[in-house]
Amino acid sequence: MKLKDVGEFGFIDRIKDDALIRKYMGLVGIGDDCAVFKVDEGKSILLTTDMLLERVHFLREVMTPHQIGYKALAVNLSDIAASGGLPREAFVSIAVPEDLSLEELLEIYQGMKDLARKFDVNITGGDTTTSLQDLVINIALTGEIDEDLILYRSGAKAGDLICVTDNLGDSAAGLDLILNHRKEMHNYPQLIKQHFMPIPHVEQGRAISRSKMATSMMDISDGLASDIRHISKASKLGAVLYEERFPHSEEFQKYLAELKPDYLKTAIGVGEDYCLLLTVPQKNFADLKKNLNELGHQLYNVGEMTEGEDIYIISKKGEKSILTLSGWDQFKEH
Amino acid sequence: MKLKDVGEFGFIDRIKDDALIRKYMGLVGIGDDCAVFKVDEGKSILLTTDMLLERVHFLREVMTPHQIGYKALAVNLSDIAASGGLPREAFVSIAVPEDLSLEELLEIYQGMKDLARKFDVNITGGDTTTSLQDLVINIALTGEIDEDLILYRSGAKAGDLICVTDNLGDSAAGLDLILNHRKEMHNYPQLIKQHFMPIPHVEQGRAISRSKMATSMMDISDGLASDIRHISKASKLGAVLYEERFPHSEEFQKYLAELKPDYLKTAIGVGEDYCLLLTVPQKNFADLKKNLNELGHQLYNVGEMTEGEDIYIISKKGEKSILTLSGWDQFKEH
Repeated sequence: MKLKDVGEFGFIDRIKDDALIRKYMGLVGIGDDCAVFKVDEGKSILLTTDMLLERVHFLREVMTPHQIGYKALAVNLSDIAASGGLPREAFVSIAVPEDLSLEELLEIYQGMKDLARKFDVNITGGDTTTSLQDLVINIALTGEIDEDLILYRSGAKAGDLICVTDNLGDSAAGLDLILNHRKEMHNYPQLIKQHFMPIPHVEQGRAISRSKMATSMMDISDGLASDIRHISKASKLGAVLYEERFPHSEEFQKYLAELKPDYLKTAIGVGEDYCLLLTVPQKNFADLKKNLNELGHQLYNVGEMTEGEDIYIISKKGEKSILTLSGWDQFKEH
Repeated sequence: MKLKDVGEFGFIDRIKDDALIRKYMGLVGIGDDCAVFKVDEGKSILLTTDMLLERVHFLREVMTPHQIGYKALAVNLSDIAASGGLPREAFVSIAVPEDLSLEELLEIYQGMKDLARKFDVNITGGDTTTSLQDLVINIALTGEIDEDLILYRSGAKAGDLICVTDNLGDSAAGLDLILNHRKEMHNYPQLIKQHFMPIPHVEQGRAISRSKMATSMMDISDGLASDIRHISKASKLGAVLYEERFPHSEEFQKYLAELKPDYLKTAIGVGEDYCLLLTVPQKNFADLKKNLNELGHQLYNVGEMTEGEDIYIISKKGEKSILTLSGWDQFKEH
C-alpha cells in the first residue's frame, strides 16, 4: 500500500497511536497547526534539529525502515544529552518518495516510537510531504533543563581533562564494514549495531550536568578530531589528545587486527559515536567517573585542554604532532 | 563560491549575523548542540514545523533564493498565526545541492531574515547538510501564547459563522500563471506576489485570539474546501459555504475574466492562501470585524457551521450540493 492510498490525513491517523507516551497536559499534539506544550516553572527549553537524507546519511538498501526511524531520533536525543537535558517532545517532518510503501513508512515511525518510549519522549507533531526521489527525515526535539545545569561548549578551562563516555570508532568501523566489507559484517555485530542503532547517552548527560563536575560538553557526531575543535574554539583554548588512551571495544580491536584500516581516521576522524565529549577539572575526574560507574556508565580521559589554540596529538610512540585530520566536515573537501 | 569552499562551520559563521534580532536572554543560539530558550511564566509554547522540497513545493528556476527563504519561513509563521500565537524562535534545517552557490544560499537566509525581522523572530539554530539533488528546507518555529487564548480547530459550534481574513484564490491564480501562462505574469503582479511572498496573518491571529470572540481557527494552506473539513472533523459538525460570499481581489476577477480557469478549484481547491479560517458566533461577528478593520485588516463571512458532518456549497445560482472537491491532499490521487 502506498501513502497516496490513504492520503496525508489517513496517514496521520495511523501514526497517532502510541505517539504520545506521556499524558499531554490536556493540550493538543498531532493534527493541529501547532503543538502546544508547557514546561515547569524555572525550566529552560532546549531545542535541537537534525535532517537526515537518503544517500547522504543512510542507504535504504542496507538499513531497515525501523533502523532508519530509530537513528533519526537517536541523533537528536544525543544532542539533548550533550546539553545535559531531559528530552521531551519530538516533531517529525518526513518527505516520502513514491517507492516507499505505507508499511515501510509505518515501520520508520515504529523505530522512532520504540526509542522514544525508552527515553520518555512524545512524538508530538510534524509535517508529511512527498519527495520526488530521496527519503528525507527532519526531527526537531525539545528538552528541558534547569538553567544553571546547562553545559555549553564554551566552559572548558586550561588543564581540564578531555573525557569521553564510550569507546571510540565502533560506528565508523561498522560503516566501513557495511560499505567495504559486507561479507565480514556478520563477524562484527556490535560494530554494525553501534552504527545503525547507537544508544544516545541521555542518562550520562543528565548525570554529568547534575553533578556540576564538568565544565563543557557536546556529543561526538563528526569524530573526536573534529568535535574537540568546537570546544577549543568556543572556550578559546588548545588541546592535546593521547592516542594510547583512546578506549576501544574488543570487536574494534579485532577489526583493526584483521582489516587493517587507517587507525586514526576510523577511531577519531569519521564519528557518529554519539557518546559525549566533555571537559572535567582534574580534581573532579575520579568522583565523576565513580558517579557514572555506579550508574553502569563509563568515563575515559583522552587528553587535556591547554593554553593556546592548536590541537596536538601524542602518538603511541610518544611523538607529538599537530592534529591535521579535520574529521568529517560534510561540505569541505579534504 | 560553493558551500564546500567554506565548510559547514564557515557557513554557520556567515549566517550568524542578524540571525538574532532580539536580545537572547544571555543564552546560546546558533552553534551549540541545542538552542536554549526561556519563556515568561504562564506562557505556553507553540511549535510548528514545515518541510519544503524543490520540485514538490517550489521550482528553483522561477523563484529567487530570497523568495524561497521568505516563503519557507512564511508558511511556518502562518501556522503560529493560526493558533493566535506570537512567533519567537526559528530553527532552519537545510539540505544543499551541489549546484547551489554560497551566494544563493546566503540569499535564502536573507529572505528568511527579512521576514523574521518584520515579525520579531530569531533564527536560533538548525542543521546544514548536503543534498545529492534537491534543495530541502525544514523550519521548526516556536511561538508563545497565554494558554487560555489558544484557538484550536475543535471549538466550533453549530451556527457559528465561517470567516476568512483575506481574499481567496490569489496564490492559486499566481501559481497557475507561473506554471501555465508565463507570458501573462507581468499583468498580475499581486497574484504572483501573493504566491511567492504571502504575508502571514500573525497580527490578525493575535488580535482574534486576544478578542476571545472566535471559537476555532486554522490557516488556509490546502484551500478552503479542504481546510474547512479539519474544523468540521475536529468540532464534529458540518458546514455550508456560500460561493457568492467568497472575497476576491480585483486582479483575481480580471484573471477569471481573461483566462477562464476552473473557478472553484482556483478559489478554494488549491490553497496556499495563508490567511486565517475561523469560526465566529454570529453575535460576535460585527464586533470582531470592526476590531480587525481598525487594525487595517479584513474579516469576511463565507458560510456557517451546521449540525451533521457534511460540507455543502451553495452556488451563485442558489443550488445546494455536497462539496466533493477535496482540496489539495498531497498524497491522495483525486
